[in-house]
Amino acid sequence: MAWLRNLSKFSTIKRPKNTDPLWVLPRFTSLSNPIEEKGIGYSGLEATRAHEKPRVVVLGSGWAGCRLLKGLDPHIYDIVCVSPRNHMVFTPLLASTCVGTLEFRSVAEPIGRIQPAISREPGSYFFLAHCTHIDAHNHMVHCETVTEGAETITPWKFTISYDKLVIALGSQPSTFGIQGVKEHAIFLREVHHAQEIRRKLLLNLMLSDVPGITEEEKQRLLHCVVVGGGPTGVEFSGELSDFIMRDVRQRYAHVKDYIHVTLIEANEILSSFDDRLRRYATKQLTKSGVRLVRGIVKDVKAQKIILSDGSEVPYGLLVWSTGVGPSPIIQSLDLPKAPGGRIGVDEWLRIPSVQDVFSIGDCSGFLESTGRPTLPALAQVADRQGKYLADLLNKIGKAGAGHANSAKEIEFGDPFVYKHLGSMATIGRYKALVDLRQGKETKGLALAGFLSFFIWRSAYITRVVSWRNRFYVFVNWVTTLVFGRDISRI
Amino acid sequence: MAWLRNLSKFSTIKRPKNTDPLWVLPRFTSLSNPIEEKGIGYSGLEATRAHEKPRVVVLGSGWAGCRLLKGLDPHIYDIVCVSPRNHMVFTPLLASTCVGTLEFRSVAEPIGRIQPAISREPGSYFFLAHCTHIDAHNHMVHCETVTEGAETITPWKFTISYDKLVIALGSQPSTFGIQGVKEHAIFLREVHHAQEIRRKLLLNLMLSDVPGITEEEKQRLLHCVVVGGGPTGVEFSGELSDFIMRDVRQRYAHVKDYIHVTLIEANEILSSFDDRLRRYATKQLTKSGVRLVRGIVKDVKAQKIILSDGSEVPYGLLVWSTGVGPSPIIQSLDLPKAPGGRIGVDEWLRIPSVQDVFSIGDCSGFLESTGRPTLPALAQVADRQGKYLADLLNKIGKAGAGHANSAKEIEFGDPFVYKHLGSMATIGRYKALVDLRQGKETKGLALAGFLSFFIWRSAYITRVVSWRNRFYVFVNWVTTLVFGRDISRI
Repeated sequence: MAWLRNLSKFSTIKRPKNTDPLWVLPRFTSLSNPIEEKGIGYSGLEATRAHEKPRVVVLGSGWAGCRLLKGLDPHIYDIVCVSPRNHMVFTPLLASTCVGTLEFRSVAEPIGRIQPAISREPGSYFFLAHCTHIDAHNHMVHCETVTEGAETITPWKFTISYDKLVIALGSQPSTFGIQGVKEHAIFLREVHHAQEIRRKLLLNLMLSDVPGITEEEKQRLLHCVVVGGGPTGVEFSGELSDFIMRDVRQRYAHVKDYIHVTLIEANEILSSFDDRLRRYATKQLTKSGVRLVRGIVKDVKAQKIILSDGSEVPYGLLVWSTGVGPSPIIQSLDLPKAPGGRIGVDEWLRIPSVQDVFSIGDCSGFLESTGRPTLPALAQVADRQGKYLADLLNKIGKAGAGHANSAKEIEFGDPFVYKHLGSMATIGRYKALVDLRQGKETKGLALAGFLSFFIWRSAYITRVVSWRNRFYVFVNWVTTLVFGRDISRI
Repeated sequence: MAWLRNLSKFSTIKRPKNTDPLWVLPRFTSLSNPIEEKGIGYSGLEATRAHEKPRVVVLGSGWAGCRLLKGLDPHIYDIVCVSPRNHMVFTPLLASTCVGTLEFRSVAEPIGRIQPAISREPGSYFFLAHCTHIDAHNHMVHCETVTEGAETITPWKFTISYDKLVIALGSQPSTFGIQGVKEHAIFLREVHHAQEIRRKLLLNLMLSDVPGITEEEKQRLLHCVVVGGGPTGVEFSGELSDFIMRDVRQRYAHVKDYIHVTLIEANEILSSFDDRLRRYATKQLTKSGVRLVRGIVKDVKAQKIILSDGSEVPYGLLVWSTGVGPSPIIQSLDLPKAPGGRIGVDEWLRIPSVQDVFSIGDCSGFLESTGRPTLPALAQVADRQGKYLADLLNKIGKAGAGHANSAKEIEFGDPFVYKHLGSMATIGRYKALVDLRQGKETKGLALAGFLSFFIWRSAYITRVVSWRNRFYVFVNWVTTLVFGRDISRI
């Protein structure tokens, strides 16, 4: 009997306590290690040799980095991605996941699905790690693993030699040095942010129904405050009020009259949009119960925020989306900077001062010497830059200049030019804005209402990266339409 | 312009700092409070009056509690459920969520969807709280809210008076007093357990690919150990080896030869099943790479377990499923106990010593005086008991004996009789076991292989509570079939 055979096999290899801890895995030790076979050794990935494929190292797994990964040709390059996150977040749809319109999984795309070579090719890898230091002169990056506490395994450092390096480390939310934002507010940039918002929202809804709570507490708990009137803040407010209108009224009937959404903005909401669209958005949001407040946040406490005029706003949920700025690692880099503290690049998205290093996405901007404006921190820009650089690097590789320091003589061809295709924002309740003007001043099509909502959804569903997720997003939308949103708090 | 109107509306109510913190929500204060309207007041839910609906309080939201909630007639009773979890977990499919075959959401059913009255009827509630004490003589339960730390709101106590009380608090995993199990092993009973297992599994897969890791560490990290050869342990091992066979080999090609599953069981796996099925399962598991080890765990450390024979088993992931026992709250109750420390009930699932208190599910068992055997801690038993008690309580209510102390003279009718409909277990790779015998000794149909896998899936998809989740589970299964499992680590 298999079980007994197995057992006897085992009983033959009992050992005293102080023996090799791997006794239980006898046939492992005979295995050779693919990395060692490649002769790279364990301190890191050593410089590639002339006969090997050149190695592109991509730091970051956001829009820019992932679009680049997708476009790189694995027949030309070994591709290595370093990021603390093994998936790309489809940020435009993140707001929808907070209220259960979409599943979290539907807006997350694993790197391995974006660039399959990462998980298949012997020389291509994804490393779950932070980049700690860039040594551009030796063509090397220093990294440390992300391990979530030492119980599983203690973090360790390692190095990667690159032939081409692309810095796509993105940005971080700006807090303008306001006390308590990091501690008490929730941002809306990662899936775990959306999960935290969802858990807190549902927790507050349930707690406000429990006997023994005071009226004041109940009103505070169910007061959702959003700071920042950009697309993210507006979309989240819209989704939230939609959730309240459609789901809370049925499923939390006892507390439906207590829950409210306030959107605080220092200037105007959706300032980048056409005036008519802005007015339309303002009207729709107000109509769907979102209170728009113009104010400047001075201080954030655990249960209330204090505005610059001294007034206090108690809250149960605080979401912060007031734009982004460069992250510490970007600030620490000893490279020429563009306006706004971003990494300075030339027209080809190169960092001129060093060889073989490029930067794309929110973390980079054109050097003043290029005479070009800093591009907005938009997924659209990151996407376009990622695609451009992938094509450029493939071209360089094809020209035989993929290895380190060999691209000096190469003609890079057309520089990167950004053409704004327009902005979109949903404001909940089957309404959205579509602004197809080239810029704030120029003329162009500006749409609002259901038609544009339809355009908005179509546009996104076709851009969700994999077919799997397109399918899931579609299924989610249909399910929400038929069954309402999901309210299980897991 | 709406925005300006809104703004001016606001600017009229600016106040100095030391004012009523609710200034920002002026129109709230005019709202009356539904609970106060019902005259219940805030310290808790007071005893119902003769002209009001009687109140059934259900402690717990597991199989038993939820099946009961589903069956109770909201026209007869006000229904109150107290639990730290606002959803029911469809436990038989939980193992599938760890490896991404199913979404977590697909196996969680919100209470509000199981018994809509909870969220709609003025006198019916779900309270996110723990029961701290049962005062059977005053027909009252004492509870404390679950708030996840004081930042949102400090927890508070409250009381609920009941006309009928149902204790369905379930059980907790047994650790047999073994050191380190709680700290280092993961159980598989809640959605957050499955999430933890998934996160750890994917973390280990990714870390084992990073340069700088030693062979030993790599082998340890990718060694998944399951302790306990019951259906849960076997199903999880099966799913895991299936995941390794089908997905890891493609998506983590670099480490595919390092990952292994070991199932440790002190006696026989699936001891409740037919011998032939057990042999079949053993054969299939071994074939799909699961190593079956007969051993007794003596001690659990952060990175290795020590067996009673002194041998050490290093692990990266440790899942513990060795059966269940009564939880502390059950042990603390001053009520007659059944064998195994469960709450003792009579043939009608009543607790004889007190009025109007019933108990169902894993936490209860027949008193020895009834001469009946203790029923196994199975979803099947809980389900049947929940249904039986719902019918019984509805009957009592219809007979006008719903209020406290008014059911003394009522004829309860047929006692609860449990008829075992058979056991099912999947062993991964489209294979499952179906054992339709009444008991271990009796004759009956015993199936294994794809046919029974098909039966297994059909059986479960029809039992997943809501249509929404039936739909989702179906979609998940199809998607996994077409696109493979999801590997984003969120």
